[in-house]
Amino acid sequence: SSRAVPADDGSWRVTGQKIFITYGDHDLTPNIIHFVLARTPGSPPGTKGISLFLVPKVLVNDNGSLGEPNDVSTVSIEHKLGIHGSPTCVMSFGDAGEGAVGYMIGEENGGMRAMFTMMNDARVAVGLEGLAISERSYQQALTYAQERRQGRAVGADPTQSSPIIEHPDVRRMLMTMKSTIEAMRALIYLNAASIDRAHSAASDDEQARASRVADLLTPISKAWSTDMGVELTSVGIQVNGGMGYVEEAGSAQHFRDARIAPIYEGTNGIQAIDLVMRKLPMDGGEFVRGFIEELHEVPRTLEERGLEDIGRPLAAGLVALLEATDWLLGCDDVNDRLAGASPYLRLAGVVIGGVLLGKQALAADQLGEKAKVATARFFAGQIVPAVGGLIPAITAGAGDLFALDAQELGG
Amino acid sequence: SSRAVPADDGSWRVTGQKIFITYGDHDLTPNIIHFVLARTPGSPPGTKGISLFLVPKVLVNDNGSLGEPNDVSTVSIEHKLGIHGSPTCVMSFGDAGEGAVGYMIGEENGGMRAMFTMMNDARVAVGLEGLAISERSYQQALTYAQERRQGRAVGADPTQSSPIIEHPDVRRMLMTMKSTIEAMRALIYLNAASIDRAHSAASDDEQARASRVADLLTPISKAWSTDMGVELTSVGIQVNGGMGYVEEAGSAQHFRDARIAPIYEGTNGIQAIDLVMRKLPMDGGEFVRGFIEELHEVPRTLEERGLEDIGRPLAAGLVALLEATDWLLGCDDVNDRLAGASPYLRLAGVVIGGVLLGKQALAADQLGEKAKVATARFFAGQIVPAVGGLIPAITAGAGDLFALDAQELGG
Repeated sequence: SSRAVPADDGSWRVTGQKIFITYGDHDLTPNIIHFVLARTPGSPPGTKGISLFLVPKVLVNDNGSLGEPNDVSTVSIEHKLGIHGSPTCVMSFGDAGEGAVGYMIGEENGGMRAMFTMMNDARVAVGLEGLAISERSYQQALTYAQERRQGRAVGADPTQSSPIIEHPDVRRMLMTMKSTIEAMRALIYLNAASIDRAHSAASDDEQARASRVADLLTPISKAWSTDMGVELTSVGIQVNGGMGYVEEAGSAQHFRDARIAPIYEGTNGIQAIDLVMRKLPMDGGEFVRGFIEELHEVPRTLEERGLEDIGRPLAAGLVALLEATDWLLGCDDVNDRLAGASPYLRLAGVVIGGVLLGKQALAADQLGEKAKVATARFFAGQIVPAVGGLIPAITAGAGDLFALDAQELGG
Repeated sequence: SSRAVPADDGSWRVTGQKIFITYGDHDLTPNIIHFVLARTPGSPPGTKGISLFLVPKVLVNDNGSLGEPNDVSTVSIEHKLGIHGSPTCVMSFGDAGEGAVGYMIGEENGGMRAMFTMMNDARVAVGLEGLAISERSYQQALTYAQERRQGRAVGADPTQSSPIIEHPDVRRMLMTMKSTIEAMRALIYLNAASIDRAHSAASDDEQARASRVADLLTPISKAWSTDMGVELTSVGIQVNGGMGYVEEAGSAQHFRDARIAPIYEGTNGIQAIDLVMRKLPMDGGEFVRGFIEELHEVPRTLEERGLEDIGRPLAAGLVALLEATDWLLGCDDVNDRLAGASPYLRLAGVVIGGVLLGKQALAADQLGEKAKVATARFFAGQIVPAVGGLIPAITAGAGDLFALDAQELGG
């Protein structure tokens, strides 16, 4: 692991190698600053002994001009599946001498806390990446489906082929993309607005509550939206048929690029653990229970407004979500809770996203915006019911996961 | 479209361009023969006017030696997402003169029928491709999970990191891969054996029945196994974490390669249409109903043998499958049936695959092979229940799919 020793002038000398450094080197700017985690002499073991340093590529003179190069070098660049616009580097600090010049950020041994300030916002941003690339893939697929003619749709002019958008299965793919994207967007809006309100709401109580909403939703925004990013860009390829497999069409790149997002800024498995082990137990579980209870207002109002075909499956989804939540909160065995974490996160994403989309539909209905209502109806009626079936996986415990030993897993 | 005109010597002269020709050109063999669909003069319009021709790259002399090059040329090679070992070519026939020399295969205007002889076997083979690449991805992921250490598992030695295979979420990913692979393999075994029995069973009745089983299962083997190929190779990447996104690790290639299989030999949407529109109605629906009824024998026997935790969810899955089947068979509106086709195919794949895995578990239980029983238990208990929630999507009809017009879809 990387180490830092103090220099006479109050700066530090940092040595070590770091892998998977995004934009570790490039020539888009005259200088690059690296945030580097390293251990100082005599620091306690584990994550409590890590400090954060700013290490520039080029040293800066007192007058602000660029000076000598720092002892920072790029060892190699990874050959990745996607995001080829982003060089991922192995970086070496202090290879040539006594260490790269670095400046401590925050307190000594407070590096992990300082990093997590960045990580939490980054997690929402990566969720947004899943949403954004799904939207790009959808726009591409929609255009292709309107232009490409193949087969003959039911009731279509028998003298020519139909645009494939007229085929029900292609419509299903497009509606799945569109409605899931809108549900993700609703979720991430609430997540991001809650982060803002946690800093700027009028009262301390409102700020505290907004902070908890953001804490609860962040792992869901990150993991569900990035899982969907992979699934929906795959659907985007499928809409394109054979052309989708050819790089020039563009949809293959969306699929390749989307695949990183479930991995970085904490894998989606880590997000699920964060959700189940740290977020659900907030306030002894009362916060998440109250949050789910408040969401019931949406299906109730939908039913009052004659939109019970949207409201009913959303209410059923919330009942399933509360059932799963109660099981996890009541479970004493840590491994059993961890075993259910990922399917629980998916259930939470689909149900909460669906309810927030239903809330948009309520507003849209009053404005006569039928498209939003129809999109929410599809998601509530055809996507949300599919995740109720995750309850057995969430509540099964870890037993079946560990039934096979290593040799049997390979057999 | 390509055309063929008769030559004096009984051969034909073929002209036209063909895209997406797998191994259209290569230097692995001294000659290449192309099967080319083309229209003959005066042929009826549509697929009933297409004939099949064999067109060699190099003409063959009477004594069997290679002669002059035929008028066959490679226009370009596609830049594909994956399967880079397979050159996909745009081919041109008869560019230089009066046409490439071709020889008719089968009857004039009987080309589509001749091609489908190949296509049906090819569909099972592509399903097998989905299975095989999932298995390769699983083996890679399993090895990585046993070697890579990160974090500390519950109850593990506190002085060192645990192999990630000890974390429940990683186990869930591996068990999902392993159990789905074994369910796919069971399905494809039955499909392939039925094709064999359709040709070689002792009685005509048995042959006819085997032929129907093969007809029913072929679109499921093709589409479900290739959809799973994409999903499971994606899980394989996830097990690898950041390394999975680096091409050298191998799992990214599995993911890229797997993505073609839901597209070629008839997209999975086409398979679903084939299943719902042609296969379910065989014998007025009695064949598929009888097939599902016979599968109930497996959960019944599981329950008799004290394996009701496997049998019960399988029985529930078969009930859901019959409900969906009856709805589709009873539905008069073609678009409504087409709308439910893809989710129905997935339901059928998971349930039939699960029951066949349960059947293997019955045999394994008697032999004391606990790993197979545990694998079937995981699939039946945690994977099968998730697809019961597809019923609303299968039975919703086409209304919600066509609720938005083209402009609203883009809004």
